[in-house]
Amino acid sequence: MAGAGLSEFEFIARLLRPLASGVPGAEGLGDDTAHLKPPSGHEIVVTTDALVCGVHFLAHHPPDLIARKALRVNLSDLAASGARPWTYQLALALSDDIDDAWLAAFCNGLARDQREFSIDLTGGDTVSTPGPLTIAVTALGLVPAGQSLHRAGAKPGDAVFVSGTIGDGALGLRASEGKLAGAGAEDIAALSDRYLLPRPRATLGARLRGLASACMDISDGLVGDLGHICARSAVAAVIDVARMPLSEPARRAIERDAALLELAITGGDDYELLFAAPASERGAIATLAREIGVPITEIGRIEAGAGVTALRGGEPMSLTRTGYRHR
Amino acid sequence: MAGAGLSEFEFIARLLRPLASGVPGAEGLGDDTAHLKPPSGHEIVVTTDALVCGVHFLAHHPPDLIARKALRVNLSDLAASGARPWTYQLALALSDDIDDAWLAAFCNGLARDQREFSIDLTGGDTVSTPGPLTIAVTALGLVPAGQSLHRAGAKPGDAVFVSGTIGDGALGLRASEGKLAGAGAEDIAALSDRYLLPRPRATLGARLRGLASACMDISDGLVGDLGHICARSAVAAVIDVARMPLSEPARRAIERDAALLELAITGGDDYELLFAAPASERGAIATLAREIGVPITEIGRIEAGAGVTALRGGEPMSLTRTGYRHR
Repeated sequence: MAGAGLSEFEFIARLLRPLASGVPGAEGLGDDTAHLKPPSGHEIVVTTDALVCGVHFLAHHPPDLIARKALRVNLSDLAASGARPWTYQLALALSDDIDDAWLAAFCNGLARDQREFSIDLTGGDTVSTPGPLTIAVTALGLVPAGQSLHRAGAKPGDAVFVSGTIGDGALGLRASEGKLAGAGAEDIAALSDRYLLPRPRATLGARLRGLASACMDISDGLVGDLGHICARSAVAAVIDVARMPLSEPARRAIERDAALLELAITGGDDYELLFAAPASERGAIATLAREIGVPITEIGRIEAGAGVTALRGGEPMSLTRTGYRHR
Repeated sequence: MAGAGLSEFEFIARLLRPLASGVPGAEGLGDDTAHLKPPSGHEIVVTTDALVCGVHFLAHHPPDLIARKALRVNLSDLAASGARPWTYQLALALSDDIDDAWLAAFCNGLARDQREFSIDLTGGDTVSTPGPLTIAVTALGLVPAGQSLHRAGAKPGDAVFVSGTIGDGALGLRASEGKLAGAGAEDIAALSDRYLLPRPRATLGARLRGLASACMDISDGLVGDLGHICARSAVAAVIDVARMPLSEPARRAIERDAALLELAITGGDDYELLFAAPASERGAIATLAREIGVPITEIGRIEAGAGVTALRGGEPMSLTRTGYRHR
């Protein structure tokens, strides 16, 4: 198995099997298949994300953070559906440079996030690759039948909200590459950390069931992802960039270089929740934000029409990029 | 997206979306997540297999066969669990050399097998890789609760059975590489085809529920995989290689080179079902084989103890290899 001293059998027995101990039907990874009993009255939410070394993360990134990012980008998708995490499958294509210490640290990262997010490994596949390390996670979540959140459903008159702060992922990628001119060490560390380790809004997502009319997580950039909601809901959206919630490090970076504002609202890897809700739910959403300790900011409104307009000083911004290519 | 002229958006819209039309909760791949409603009274069986170009298939293999193999190795795992196919997620890491025609042929292969095996695409992820094309499929199956088949469960006194013929996968790999000395063109074609395109025993697997005491599919070689059943069931197995079902091309190859017998029973990629059942079920199994038109051969018995013994002329064979590394 790749360059590791552990055989595939030992890797599974020593490092992966403990990750599957929480699921009786995973048979301690002793079968090729896991057998799951979904609770009655629930839908299963399924999502898959693949990460490639050199594309979605770099070889020198800490293995535990790579593991947690691979899991968390999926947990963010589950959160956006209003689902609670349940189980996941892990496909690993291991390159020659992966050694036992790397694998142990990688699995420690998985174990830590399994506990934090109440999700268990049920199986997967480990193969060798002559190319870069590649990780594909397929996660399953549970949601009461008929209550899941979707991109479709936003209606004219709805308000548009985001959780947390916007732009830290894209600015963090710049910072981690040493390309954020003038930033202090603390800001570089804070932003890099946001890029390396997404914070899936698991609690918020589940609580938005019955409140949000449409929801998704911001992985490809706020403007582009809001465009996806608009397309699926057959509506338009207008947002005011002055209302955009920014972290202090992001605000300082944009003060030094105003062009970074566009990067902040179009760059990816925020993993915050972006959702529409009837304006009449503003009070309930403010209460929810206080209850769970997650900042939620209203940034705009849904209108009839198509497409996303970002206003700055009342004028539409001309955005040269609306999507995002990870790295 | 890789070297393809299609954008990722177009690839999803034109080629992948039609593959997801059978599942209402897949939202035409318009969301990051699919929403599935399992029928009541069923367990969900989950399995994942990853294939890497240059490791599990070669760049010159036909893209439709690569697609079908990627799906079928998972369908074989579902069959071994007694599950019927339900849905799958597809993670694709596309290399630079993949063009639109390749993608179209690949998706045609998926479409064909989706129809043949009654399974639908529900989502996935497509990314670029600087390395080899990598495909990870996570398939979900359904089985009536409590009726799934496992590796554990074989008991002393049980008989050991295999479906179809053994060794065609490993001999087919040799044949496809031009390394099967003395074989005629027809034998090379027949064996290569068995290597390139597994035949998952979907119908047989579902019918073995209630008959087999333990079951798995042969992906790593008959002897090694029977060893897995023995380990999980805490039993030993004795098989008689004279009873091994061989295809005519395999029989001819072994007649020319007796050393290939060991390859046939230890090589991988057969994707036949290997199962144990009480000796009292022999008649029921023979009837089942006739009913569904799948040859089933009794090749040995389960005993108390541990490990697998392969007898030839009444004497244990000394096997230099019991596992298999794909390619």
